[in-house]
Amino acid sequence: MRLIIIGGVAAGMSAASKLRRLDEDAEIIVFEKGDDVSYGACGMPYYISGEIESADSLVARTPDAFRKKGIDVRTRHEVIAIDTERKSVTVAAGDEEKQYSYDKLLIATGARSLRLDVPGRDDGRIRSLKSLSDARFLKETLTDAYSHIGLIGGGYIGIEMAEALRTMGKRVTMIERESQVLPGFDADMASLVEDTLKAEGVTLKKQETVEAYEQGDSIRIQTDRDAYEVDFVIESIGVRPDTAFLEGTAIEMEKGAIKVDEGMETNVRDVYAAGDCALYPHRLLDEHVYVPLGTHANKTGRLLGERLGGLERTFDGVIGSMVLKAFELEVAKTGLTASEAETAGIPFGEVRIKAPSHAGYYPGAKPLHVKWVYHREDCRLLGAQLIGEAGAAHRVNIAATAIQAGMTARTFSQLDLAYAPPFSPVWDPLQIAVNQIKCHRKKG
Amino acid sequence: MRLIIIGGVAAGMSAASKLRRLDEDAEIIVFEKGDDVSYGACGMPYYISGEIESADSLVARTPDAFRKKGIDVRTRHEVIAIDTERKSVTVAAGDEEKQYSYDKLLIATGARSLRLDVPGRDDGRIRSLKSLSDARFLKETLTDAYSHIGLIGGGYIGIEMAEALRTMGKRVTMIERESQVLPGFDADMASLVEDTLKAEGVTLKKQETVEAYEQGDSIRIQTDRDAYEVDFVIESIGVRPDTAFLEGTAIEMEKGAIKVDEGMETNVRDVYAAGDCALYPHRLLDEHVYVPLGTHANKTGRLLGERLGGLERTFDGVIGSMVLKAFELEVAKTGLTASEAETAGIPFGEVRIKAPSHAGYYPGAKPLHVKWVYHREDCRLLGAQLIGEAGAAHRVNIAATAIQAGMTARTFSQLDLAYAPPFSPVWDPLQIAVNQIKCHRKKG
Repeated sequence: MRLIIIGGVAAGMSAASKLRRLDEDAEIIVFEKGDDVSYGACGMPYYISGEIESADSLVARTPDAFRKKGIDVRTRHEVIAIDTERKSVTVAAGDEEKQYSYDKLLIATGARSLRLDVPGRDDGRIRSLKSLSDARFLKETLTDAYSHIGLIGGGYIGIEMAEALRTMGKRVTMIERESQVLPGFDADMASLVEDTLKAEGVTLKKQETVEAYEQGDSIRIQTDRDAYEVDFVIESIGVRPDTAFLEGTAIEMEKGAIKVDEGMETNVRDVYAAGDCALYPHRLLDEHVYVPLGTHANKTGRLLGERLGGLERTFDGVIGSMVLKAFELEVAKTGLTASEAETAGIPFGEVRIKAPSHAGYYPGAKPLHVKWVYHREDCRLLGAQLIGEAGAAHRVNIAATAIQAGMTARTFSQLDLAYAPPFSPVWDPLQIAVNQIKCHRKKG
Repeated sequence: MRLIIIGGVAAGMSAASKLRRLDEDAEIIVFEKGDDVSYGACGMPYYISGEIESADSLVARTPDAFRKKGIDVRTRHEVIAIDTERKSVTVAAGDEEKQYSYDKLLIATGARSLRLDVPGRDDGRIRSLKSLSDARFLKETLTDAYSHIGLIGGGYIGIEMAEALRTMGKRVTMIERESQVLPGFDADMASLVEDTLKAEGVTLKKQETVEAYEQGDSIRIQTDRDAYEVDFVIESIGVRPDTAFLEGTAIEMEKGAIKVDEGMETNVRDVYAAGDCALYPHRLLDEHVYVPLGTHANKTGRLLGERLGGLERTFDGVIGSMVLKAFELEVAKTGLTASEAETAGIPFGEVRIKAPSHAGYYPGAKPLHVKWVYHREDCRLLGAQLIGEAGAAHRVNIAATAIQAGMTARTFSQLDLAYAPPFSPVWDPLQIAVNQIKCHRKKG
């Protein structure tokens, strides 16, 4: 059995490693068009800022380490075509092109950065951050010569980069097209993050659309409302699946992402997809969604390795859990926001509280903002958002677990949760908030 | 409707407050034999150590504040007898005794410290810590004149007091009868805490039983194996329900604790119990258990207030979640330990791992020890224990939620949990551990 894997980062190498452990005989070839495999992309902002000293420490395992385990990793090898009839791929390496046949094929090419299509975009000082090569470039380039950085986009990578750049002592201007940063959060919660951005010295411009870059000694960012002179631009306006090379194949896609079944198999037999190039089922919505995150890439990659290794596994899907550090804030969400529930036409209610992150009388408690979104008919928990300087990042996963279990507000209120003053108030803030939900039925 | 509440700490005042909010007309009288109501007993070690400056800050609300809300709080009033036929209680206050009739009666007397019954025990320098009065006494008494403290018992209060006393610069000798500290934890996990106790300068003596105290300038603790000269002794060998005054009534008890139904009602109509004097159903075991913890007292008290206020509520029970700070360690458990599962005759398996508390490449990661106990037949999760310098205290509640939802290892492995490098590895340590559980079914 020969498994060919296209893409050697999270999903691809997870699949390779897992299959290797379960099946000593399978031939596993990984084609990676870049230089690096198996790295923690989420750590890149901290490498750029200097908090993580070496890019090597982001690399979980080198190509050589994989080769020693019997996984044939080939970097700088780009798959440029797939023939699903003949079950082969065409691979370009240097000037050579070569065909390889497969028994099973995993597409794990991940995503590439979206880039603005505006005049003046072709300039070496306008960049994005997606690969470890990007991170190395930014690390080397952003010397003191570049003191004012324009950040386009206020999503989570934009915010992580804002923190990194402030840590480096840069002046930062962030330009966000929408009326709030962090579009995955409700506006009332996102505004807490905006307050922190401003307090940390980030100039935040919302509801401004970049219309052009003008080059000179510096770069002039021209928006529909104003203009900003900066030394360097980092665009973080989102990503799209890296699937252009699949055009013309029989592999079914939606909005550029690959459709897979619960076993990560595409509509074409023996062709699988995992990670940031695939669509995932959303557990709370009757649809497949594009949620490019490292957790899902690792999970779906591993799961495919298990399946190919003969284990019974299916992917249960995602609910939209995420957390980021925004300067001193832990910013977390899981499940549906109020605005997502509204868009989906789900009758929902919401409660929001502020509670101390641990017992108020114990030193160091910080205000924690908690918001629950719930189904108004049966009080099922649909989503939670937590923001605070402490106690949000792990608590969100208590909520995530409850939501995935289908718990109601009442059930959650009754949970036996561990408590001690240095860690929590006697009622956990999640329970304090859930207790505000009115699901009362009067007796008799 | 007149509700009489016996005991004004967590359960009693939770019930009173909740009923007051739901029912403006009910007459609510609280008899508390001590001086204080509604205080956070779990914070007392930190008050003694000086980390919390004032005992007042442990008091959530004063008697006067309750009175302003229309709750008739009477401190230094001890209920000494109950007549369930005539629906009245006898209350002693100073030299007076008086009868009060009730429509509904809540017994929320909590627990008292167990004390050793050994020669020489009657000495003002041999104390325990249960009430805020005890805490005040210890705070005032443990001046520099007392430099070496004997701690009898290595349960969670003993360990919290060990930390408090070391913070105060005291020499501490801890004597534990059993072969491990923290009897609620498995020995392999408890040993991590023992290592920390020793590293923090606590002299730990295990498998030694105190046989006598001998008084002199100092106190000589005589055990079955050795003897220790100390200046002061704090016994923390557990508590028992404060129910002696119920002897001879029709109220059913078991091992001194009050049996209640799912609505916290005793076998005697209109008589309820909540908090540390009551037994709770264990969700994973087919029995009622005695688990005196503040979380349950608050929960059952509030629930009773809701029921008396006309809401439909039942208590779902407990699973044994707890967390404590042991010097720099977060020490947490939920559900069944391996030894508890064994005692209960449940066929179980266990896995144990050590993982970084967050992404290894991000500064500040600490080793986190995670142990899962699971049902060997269906891989249902039964219990988790987490110990580490970071990331244990809230993660245990992710496990607690999963266990209470009846999740299997497989389901847990698939949970969409939020991740970012400063907070977690890409696979949460709980998932890394659960992935070690072999619940594989081979396909076909």
